[in-house]
Amino acid sequence: MAKKQFVEPRLLKGFQDFLPEDLIPRKKLIAKIERIFEKYGFAPLETPAIEHLDILLGTGGENTNKELFRLQTPEEEDVALRFDLTVPFARTVAQYPDKLKPPFKRYAIGPVWRADKPGPGRFRQFVQFDVDAAGSDIVAVDAEIIAIMSEVMQAAGVPDHTVLINNRKLIDALLEDCGIADLETQKHVLRVIDKLAKVGVDNVRRELGEGRIDDSGDPIRGVGLDAAVIDKMLDFVAISGSSRANVMSALSERLPYSESTTKALNEMTELADALEALGVAEENAKFDPSLARGLDYYTGPVFEMIIPSAPQFGSVMGGGRYNQLVERFMNRPIPCTGMSVGLDRLIAALSHLGQFESTRSPVEALVVTMGNVRRAETLRVASELRAAGINTETYIASKKKMQMGNQLSHADHYGIPVAVILGEEEVDNGTVSIKDLLEGKTAREDIEDRDAYREAGKTGQRSVPRSEMVAAIRQILAAHQR
Amino acid sequence: MAKKQFVEPRLLKGFQDFLPEDLIPRKKLIAKIERIFEKYGFAPLETPAIEHLDILLGTGGENTNKELFRLQTPEEEDVALRFDLTVPFARTVAQYPDKLKPPFKRYAIGPVWRADKPGPGRFRQFVQFDVDAAGSDIVAVDAEIIAIMSEVMQAAGVPDHTVLINNRKLIDALLEDCGIADLETQKHVLRVIDKLAKVGVDNVRRELGEGRIDDSGDPIRGVGLDAAVIDKMLDFVAISGSSRANVMSALSERLPYSESTTKALNEMTELADALEALGVAEENAKFDPSLARGLDYYTGPVFEMIIPSAPQFGSVMGGGRYNQLVERFMNRPIPCTGMSVGLDRLIAALSHLGQFESTRSPVEALVVTMGNVRRAETLRVASELRAAGINTETYIASKKKMQMGNQLSHADHYGIPVAVILGEEEVDNGTVSIKDLLEGKTAREDIEDRDAYREAGKTGQRSVPRSEMVAAIRQILAAHQR
Repeated sequence: MAKKQFVEPRLLKGFQDFLPEDLIPRKKLIAKIERIFEKYGFAPLETPAIEHLDILLGTGGENTNKELFRLQTPEEEDVALRFDLTVPFARTVAQYPDKLKPPFKRYAIGPVWRADKPGPGRFRQFVQFDVDAAGSDIVAVDAEIIAIMSEVMQAAGVPDHTVLINNRKLIDALLEDCGIADLETQKHVLRVIDKLAKVGVDNVRRELGEGRIDDSGDPIRGVGLDAAVIDKMLDFVAISGSSRANVMSALSERLPYSESTTKALNEMTELADALEALGVAEENAKFDPSLARGLDYYTGPVFEMIIPSAPQFGSVMGGGRYNQLVERFMNRPIPCTGMSVGLDRLIAALSHLGQFESTRSPVEALVVTMGNVRRAETLRVASELRAAGINTETYIASKKKMQMGNQLSHADHYGIPVAVILGEEEVDNGTVSIKDLLEGKTAREDIEDRDAYREAGKTGQRSVPRSEMVAAIRQILAAHQR
Repeated sequence: MAKKQFVEPRLLKGFQDFLPEDLIPRKKLIAKIERIFEKYGFAPLETPAIEHLDILLGTGGENTNKELFRLQTPEEEDVALRFDLTVPFARTVAQYPDKLKPPFKRYAIGPVWRADKPGPGRFRQFVQFDVDAAGSDIVAVDAEIIAIMSEVMQAAGVPDHTVLINNRKLIDALLEDCGIADLETQKHVLRVIDKLAKVGVDNVRRELGEGRIDDSGDPIRGVGLDAAVIDKMLDFVAISGSSRANVMSALSERLPYSESTTKALNEMTELADALEALGVAEENAKFDPSLARGLDYYTGPVFEMIIPSAPQFGSVMGGGRYNQLVERFMNRPIPCTGMSVGLDRLIAALSHLGQFESTRSPVEALVVTMGNVRRAETLRVASELRAAGINTETYIASKKKMQMGNQLSHADHYGIPVAVILGEEEVDNGTVSIKDLLEGKTAREDIEDRDAYREAGKTGQRSVPRSEMVAAIRQILAAHQR
């Protein structure tokens, strides 16, 4: 017999399938986060995957210059897949000023695409999950966003978390104090400071000065600052304290009086007051002058969520205030602030911390049939369970695969906790046998003797009248916290 | 002053933005439907937007030959945006046979793209929302899918709905009885019968015979059947009855005994039994031999959801059994059945029926401040409300926009039902003023006198101690069924 040709089923490199075992807990996490966003008054908004090329190009956003997946419409318009959700947000704010009347707060979740080199944990399609607020220039909004970040971590089961907070205006005051006025030099300084956690203070000192040779032997150009200026800077970014107020007083001691210093310190004080009013604990949100994330793009507060007990996952959420993006699409500035949940990275951290449980199926009860029970009877039992809100599957394979063993191995494979067994006897006397499949499994794990194994298999199985079936199942599900 | 250049904020033709007013009720509907899918044991699964071109091309699916949005990866692989969710489903079933061990049932929701001509209600990106079951060749699964379709309509608030059901095997028996063995002729007959509702029985009669001239004067080629055969066919597809059982007996009277007739009738009887066991009412699922939707692709039962009181919306959900698609990706057949919710069309029908309520914001309470109240006090009140699970917004604009009028006009614009008013007096004596914004609105609608208008504006406003604030708001929300 000639072998039939078929197309090999395969994924593109850099792309992911989400099978139920990951997607079920992922969807639960997303729902929890959405609930928090809505509690803070953010409304959902969705934009399409494809945008005109000029909307996406050179937007000066945090993610600008990312590689785009470009394509053409049948009308030969140049278009591309969106690379983030912030640029489309700015577009909608400018496009619908009447409907989305500022102050306007939205959340969005959806895939974005980048034609970068794929690698471990780096995908060409991944999900972004953002909140952004448009039309408010006061930092109470930033404080609410920081409160959201902390509440998300609480809800995800990670009480040990810290939002690091800095402010572009503080760094501006520092740069002014150091006499660094040239924009390119400023950006260079910010990029170097951003490497602090990665390369350490000595290497940063060298890069702020004459430069250094990296591990591979390549030279890295230095900023060329004087030793005294470098000391002042490193001294400044090393400021820390046991509370936000302590950091604030250390900062104000270090910065000489000037208009920009006053502005920066006032904004940080306002932010500290708002965080306190919102009940964000000191350990969950800290002022950290060394945080330089995207400071060349952000215009005010910047924030980044880290997990102190799992630092290897880096930033799992981050954002800041950007007051210039919407201006690209309209003739007036609309101040914005927002943050993005790094869903994949957050989930990686949660898995590591044991807070992300793989679940192969939403099914709570499998109706299993034995002997000559009519299919209609199986379906009737399933209907009763579904009407009571229990997620129920009927085992529906070809007739030759309807042996009890196949049915129970199906339940085992998909981790279904309860079997509702229906034999001829049960149908005749109006009962069902309810079996706790997880208890049986645990009981059998250490048994080697064959009879004892069989006996243990019967534990957690009992016959109940049909009228008590739902209650009996609920009891088992509750015992397993399902 | 030179006018600043900016990029015009605009959508691509054929693409949609979903603003909160539509997306909030849309997400609620999606959540309801997902809940039903899970109750029937379907697990979520997600695949990426982009697939290898050969995965998508010529898959022989129901939607084959659709125009693809093609593009290239940086490695110059030919890829395209997916045009449906069924082909990627078939790919995953073939690609992960161990993890997704059949019988396997999944649901999926996500955007698909087609480079067709856009038109009213026809988009180049739209959402598909599917359930599919792999690995079962018995029609009890089809019955469960039909039960889901009915339950979705109930949950959406449309008790008046009917799933029309036919079976490819019935039509095969009819074609055999009529002596039509040629595959091309068979497909031609199916295409003509599919036009019945659209062009009427007389035109179908002509098209089955010698052909006809359409409204624009163009000739339509006929199938060329004899009058006696045409009569037999039209007679057959006209069969209807007050119950599924009645249609079954009429069908069996009309079809002569043969192996394929027996097979078809047995399958339909099995389906009727299963529908009855699942409690699907006669008026919500009818056998209709004239339904020819995708019969050249489907291999067994086909189903289509219509709303009898709103026939202009056509089919809002549809599907059927397809036993050959997975075979394209692996060396063995895996029988599948499934259906797709036409979300946009369903929502259009629900809007028409008054079952889809536009909601501009998820916010339930806006904290409004008057006079010299500290921002921190506003945030504290908001925190208390959020902790009680009430979706709360603080009005956070620039200080110059903090007048009461601006705050209440914001609440009005976004349809926020409750204002929590906080003035210096309230802060001093530990109270807040709670205002029912919807009641005030209704009361004012017919008032022309200015003083009476002002007075009415005060209705539904009362001062309560902070400790009773949450209860007072819940009472108002309950009164408005929020």
